[in-house]
Amino acid sequence: MKPLKDSHVAIVGLGLMGGSLAGAVRDRCRAVVGVARRPESVDAALERGLIDSGTTDLAEGVAQADIVVLATPVRVILRQLTRIGPLLPAGCLLMDLGSTKTLIVEAMAELPDHVQPLGGHPMCGKEVSGIDAAEPRIYQGATFILTPLSRTSEDALTTGRELAKAAGSQPLVISAERQDFLVATVSHLPYLMACALVATADATTSTDPAAWKIVAGGYRDTSRVAGSDVTMMTDILLTNRGKVLKALGVYQQQIRGLAQLVDSADEEEIRARLNEIRQERLRMYP
Amino acid sequence: MKPLKDSHVAIVGLGLMGGSLAGAVRDRCRAVVGVARRPESVDAALERGLIDSGTTDLAEGVAQADIVVLATPVRVILRQLTRIGPLLPAGCLLMDLGSTKTLIVEAMAELPDHVQPLGGHPMCGKEVSGIDAAEPRIYQGATFILTPLSRTSEDALTTGRELAKAAGSQPLVISAERQDFLVATVSHLPYLMACALVATADATTSTDPAAWKIVAGGYRDTSRVAGSDVTMMTDILLTNRGKVLKALGVYQQQIRGLAQLVDSADEEEIRARLNEIRQERLRMYP
Repeated sequence: MKPLKDSHVAIVGLGLMGGSLAGAVRDRCRAVVGVARRPESVDAALERGLIDSGTTDLAEGVAQADIVVLATPVRVILRQLTRIGPLLPAGCLLMDLGSTKTLIVEAMAELPDHVQPLGGHPMCGKEVSGIDAAEPRIYQGATFILTPLSRTSEDALTTGRELAKAAGSQPLVISAERQDFLVATVSHLPYLMACALVATADATTSTDPAAWKIVAGGYRDTSRVAGSDVTMMTDILLTNRGKVLKALGVYQQQIRGLAQLVDSADEEEIRARLNEIRQERLRMYP
Repeated sequence: MKPLKDSHVAIVGLGLMGGSLAGAVRDRCRAVVGVARRPESVDAALERGLIDSGTTDLAEGVAQADIVVLATPVRVILRQLTRIGPLLPAGCLLMDLGSTKTLIVEAMAELPDHVQPLGGHPMCGKEVSGIDAAEPRIYQGATFILTPLSRTSEDALTTGRELAKAAGSQPLVISAERQDFLVATVSHLPYLMACALVATADATTSTDPAAWKIVAGGYRDTSRVAGSDVTMMTDILLTNRGKVLKALGVYQQQIRGLAQLVDSADEEEIRARLNEIRQERLRMYP
């Protein structure tokens, strides 16, 4: 494959993630073409200087590409994978930015042989979506997961790493299954927890005007991700159901254990358990 | 009662909350005396300019006070309330900064008649404790809950409000029962959620080194308060058990509901519920 600086990169989907990636790598490759369903998104990406050129025609957008990145919601990616193969030039690297990887990698395995597939998932984002929220710097310092298939060449994987680094991220190569298990716990579970907290406050305290004067940082931080994009999260939950339900099951056990502990009023046990957990949190974030 | 600027204020307990309050009001009253169990805490508060003078002798510290603020953990406050009455000058305002108020206000009702009692709970803090973490500005802009007793005079309540404002906070007068119900949901529940998340990650993903490379903002924010001071949180859980268990019960229902929704794979229902919750979060934090 060509070095990144000589490559044409096509980014399909100009929302928060795609628009930001386009802006982040534009100076590090030959040219970035943006492909979006709505002409307004193409115009906005052009105006903001995130892409060199843009189109609403997928075939036209990817025709000259050395690297194509699908930056649409997971289930749109799954549909695009069924028809994009024949549109791609020989040797083209086809990546994506979808949050769950097992189903995507399965679909990528069905691509025609002239395409080099590579799953991707940059661990960054914001609670706002769309091209207007795009900011190239969200990729800075983020871990960029790469999930190669058995058919992915070393050369293609190297180019994928190079793209992640060009965006300011740190590539991390793991299997699709392993990534889906990990993000179920460290990302999808916190989202559902935040949703349940907001629903709890809505069901109990939110009728009291004093409630909103006393919410401290704990509530605000713990509920933050409940504001995430609903289309993206619906896709994630539907395409990572088994692992999300497993993480929820372990979490429900932990909540039940803490409830029993509070109910027991056993001071020594409570203190010991809270201390254990606090030490664990400090190990995670020293 | 005297205006605040002419008042002697004694702060009992020079940890994060007491030390910070001392520093926040020192310029707005006649003098601040700090009382702590350990001489090292008194020395540190003096060195940092948070108090005018300090002592490890409770009787000596409160002897000249117009206002006394108990800034110790809740169950220490409960013990102090059984013996501090006779040490206080006539007309003295006795406040506290405890996070749960029902038991404290009950204990305050037993104080001798020459004391004016007023429950207090400033909605601020940090995940670090002790005098070295004290920062007067944590009170800036925070809601400072005041829970008067039926015996609390208008004059004493006005002085309490004045003290909260002097620290940069906004006083909010509500009943002890109502405050305990609200903080169970917006503060103690998020703490237990954060603990359960850390315990879940510890039980499942933490053996995988990749887990700590991919934790994004969602996990970090949702688990933040699991680092809170264990002595303070144990006291809170033991003195607000009933309301904490009630909040946990509603929350467990919500989590079960979301798990069933994910399990159903019913796209329209999932999308509708997530959207409802997202809208509610946006109403809370526009």
